[in-house]
Amino acid sequence: MIRSTVTRQLVRTVALRQCRYAPVVLRTACVSPNVHNHRFYATKIQPKLTSENYPSVKRNPNYKQLSSEDLNFFKSILTENEILQASESEDLAFYNEDWMRKYKGQSKIVLKPKSVEKIAKIVKYCNEQKLAVVPQGGNTGLVGGSVPVFDEIILSVANLNQIRHFDPVSGILKCDAGVILENADNFLAEHGYIFPLDLGAKGSCHVGGVVATNAGGLRLLRYGSLHGSVLGLEVVMPNGDIVNSMDALRKDNTGYDLKQLFIGSEGTIGIITGVSIMTPTRPKAFNVSFLAVESYEAVQQVFVKAKKDLSEILSAFEFMDSNSQELTKQHLPDSPHPFEDKYPFYVLIETSGANKEHDDAKLEAFLESAMEEELVVDGVVAQDETELKNLWQWREMIPESSQAGGGVYKYDVSLPLKDLYSLVEAANTKLAEAGLVGEAPKPVIQAIGYGHVGDGNLHLNVAVREYSKDVEKALEPFVYEFVSSKHGSISAEHGLGFQKKNYIGYSKNAEEVKLIKDLRTHYDPNAILNPYKYV
Amino acid sequence: MIRSTVTRQLVRTVALRQCRYAPVVLRTACVSPNVHNHRFYATKIQPKLTSENYPSVKRNPNYKQLSSEDLNFFKSILTENEILQASESEDLAFYNEDWMRKYKGQSKIVLKPKSVEKIAKIVKYCNEQKLAVVPQGGNTGLVGGSVPVFDEIILSVANLNQIRHFDPVSGILKCDAGVILENADNFLAEHGYIFPLDLGAKGSCHVGGVVATNAGGLRLLRYGSLHGSVLGLEVVMPNGDIVNSMDALRKDNTGYDLKQLFIGSEGTIGIITGVSIMTPTRPKAFNVSFLAVESYEAVQQVFVKAKKDLSEILSAFEFMDSNSQELTKQHLPDSPHPFEDKYPFYVLIETSGANKEHDDAKLEAFLESAMEEELVVDGVVAQDETELKNLWQWREMIPESSQAGGGVYKYDVSLPLKDLYSLVEAANTKLAEAGLVGEAPKPVIQAIGYGHVGDGNLHLNVAVREYSKDVEKALEPFVYEFVSSKHGSISAEHGLGFQKKNYIGYSKNAEEVKLIKDLRTHYDPNAILNPYKYV
Repeated sequence: MIRSTVTRQLVRTVALRQCRYAPVVLRTACVSPNVHNHRFYATKIQPKLTSENYPSVKRNPNYKQLSSEDLNFFKSILTENEILQASESEDLAFYNEDWMRKYKGQSKIVLKPKSVEKIAKIVKYCNEQKLAVVPQGGNTGLVGGSVPVFDEIILSVANLNQIRHFDPVSGILKCDAGVILENADNFLAEHGYIFPLDLGAKGSCHVGGVVATNAGGLRLLRYGSLHGSVLGLEVVMPNGDIVNSMDALRKDNTGYDLKQLFIGSEGTIGIITGVSIMTPTRPKAFNVSFLAVESYEAVQQVFVKAKKDLSEILSAFEFMDSNSQELTKQHLPDSPHPFEDKYPFYVLIETSGANKEHDDAKLEAFLESAMEEELVVDGVVAQDETELKNLWQWREMIPESSQAGGGVYKYDVSLPLKDLYSLVEAANTKLAEAGLVGEAPKPVIQAIGYGHVGDGNLHLNVAVREYSKDVEKALEPFVYEFVSSKHGSISAEHGLGFQKKNYIGYSKNAEEVKLIKDLRTHYDPNAILNPYKYV
Repeated sequence: MIRSTVTRQLVRTVALRQCRYAPVVLRTACVSPNVHNHRFYATKIQPKLTSENYPSVKRNPNYKQLSSEDLNFFKSILTENEILQASESEDLAFYNEDWMRKYKGQSKIVLKPKSVEKIAKIVKYCNEQKLAVVPQGGNTGLVGGSVPVFDEIILSVANLNQIRHFDPVSGILKCDAGVILENADNFLAEHGYIFPLDLGAKGSCHVGGVVATNAGGLRLLRYGSLHGSVLGLEVVMPNGDIVNSMDALRKDNTGYDLKQLFIGSEGTIGIITGVSIMTPTRPKAFNVSFLAVESYEAVQQVFVKAKKDLSEILSAFEFMDSNSQELTKQHLPDSPHPFEDKYPFYVLIETSGANKEHDDAKLEAFLESAMEEELVVDGVVAQDETELKNLWQWREMIPESSQAGGGVYKYDVSLPLKDLYSLVEAANTKLAEAGLVGEAPKPVIQAIGYGHVGDGNLHLNVAVREYSKDVEKALEPFVYEFVSSKHGSISAEHGLGFQKKNYIGYSKNAEEVKLIKDLRTHYDPNAILNPYKYV
């Protein structure tokens, strides 16, 4: 059905060629737990060791160095293929390096236990021996949280990868932490349900990892945060105790909701080994519309209108600035952009629901009215699955496009909606004033802005030809100060990790930081879990 | 529009007379903060003192008794109308008694500060002086959590009752803890938004109170729990510190999500004084359908089908057993029930959405198909607002009807869906075997079951002519043991309070209980907040 009659000449149907779709697929194909030497990275630039890049961060001498006795203990618990050791030909790069290639640790050992009990024994031992441990899931994080800084033991949950139980009446899924997100979602699809979270790294990231980092992603607008959908967890505490709330049902008001502390704790006070989560019914119909708007003010107005008119079927509301699309066009020279002309801002709206005809009608009415009100100046609506994916790629390929020139400084912040885009403008001004932007050999290609407007979440990406201290100094703490002045968050969804450890004070007040540090010490007095990070 | 053509002769339109609608309205009219001597109670039976009813619970001698010096301190901070003192003519019953009239404390003083700073000073003082404090909101709780057990100082947030800020673009509402839920919802309605929680006591309960008790209610199926929708809190800690995260946006991944600890903490580790919450767009259309089904098995099948067919517009799925309707019919002799015949189970389905025509069409198709599949044997659909309210009353009047005969033992539990109704059957068997059920003078009128099937939440109400130890002994710990054997929760939404303090072990394992007790002591080492309760 072509809806040009309704949305008139302004809405053209797209007929893009079949194109490379989304980094997800590429990464899924390349990142398999068994092919760890052939990982797909964000950049070809070889990472430096974190210890060399950040000489002010020192190894804590209180941590024991791995000894042959320790190794013997691990061998007494684990089988041969549950232990990986560094050797002359194997530096364990897959586990030591992050996906961005900004951080590289020097761990000599990776433990991949096949049971929760084994993990508990290992953690108990490490706690007693004061051996530092970095818990690791799919290692797709963006803030250096999942790789060692020095020689921490890497404890991977990749071998805990089973669906434990699914109840098709309630929609409650129970699974191991190491189940790959896409596998969980595919499993749910067979039963008519959907994982309430989706993100670019779904082909590699783990269910446990997204919970440990409180990942946000593309479905948060519709299904809310993991704090609402996770029902129970199985967690190995720093002392080796296993805390299990996997039987929890949707409602349980008996005592503090302890599991909440682990959601977003980034492996600092416990290692998540199992997840129980409420999953919604999978929508039967999807629509995607790509719109051009003249100002950021209009982006906000379109958002309010979409919430009002599309209401319960609105499942994504993403915005992109002009520069983000120019960069992506350069990266995808064979794919025609939905619009021939350039516009200051673009909006991608996804709807999903139980009845395609109803959703079509709502979207048509919304677009017609938005154009009559002159909020939207041009727009296309996907007519089939291929077009839908093609439209999404102009949002999903931005991260890859922004680092294709060499590297990227990524800032993932929350800001009050009215102030959201002003950070991008301020960053561009700041970088220009410092004389860092322009043709090579200037380090900065461009600062671009895009993100989940629906959640007040901006991604500021500074595309660079190479990582440089000058650029870093121009941006930090400038970006954090800007966010703090608007009462925003310096990490909307990526977490703190190593990158933002020293900047939490820009988001949280002194009293909150004190309570957070205090809780960490309370649960992990020997500080063995994920040291040098978080807070 | 009469939809009998679609749902055929089985679906009749209802034409009930205008009737008393919902206990809410009665309570709203009677419970005003300024008319505290004219409160509407669940029963006319005068409550006994909790200390007399539970002689095994002793006053903790570590707590200081209120002295004239303490009173002078309070008077130095508060104005005359922020302090209420017991006198010969005033026993402060409004604040000492719970709404159920099962618990009655003996506090001699109620403090109602008009600022957060005053609350902080009072709590700091009480902590230093070891004066026990019970924080109080609308005092509509059902487990004796909001009234003193002995002589605790009652600290009411009723005078903190202002809307602080609302952002019509993001839908973020910031308000004082003492704002009455219905007032908050009415305010939001003016802006096209809705409070993501609704419950029978909305005319009296406070926004802060529903957060402190993690109330569930009627909209949870659609909008999820408060753990997902609350964005930030302002809390006075037991030492008097004010922790403020009111500026938090929808996404913030910088540190442990501390506010989660206070959601459902029932005033044990802090007093909530401000709430920031994400509110959804208010639906424009509502439909209600009341269905008759032949078995509990069919109730579950109808639920799965409703999730699939109604999906994003499903906003309530309530079930009621035959006995609950018989009891309500007796209580509402002037209101004709939607069905002339008796059926084993009834289901109330509410849909809400942005487009009435679409919702009507989805509901029609669902009902037609459910009848064809013989899952539903009879049904009515409300044709206007009055009929909609009339249908809801057959669900909402159950609590009042079940205590109209004298009193009621209320159990609010979560169970795996397949086991949900078996508890009602087991309780009836147990009471019958003990010879407690029948005509007067037998104490028990009937045990009935109803609740939020969509959330796995059963309300088991044992309607009695009077409260008796025999009935209590037959039911407890029997009910809790049953729930525990099915890995359910002994409190789905009502909380622990005084009533369930000793039963948390039936819902939580030893490790969890230890962590909960440990956190309470960590934050409130002098145990001044809401003692004798929770855990």
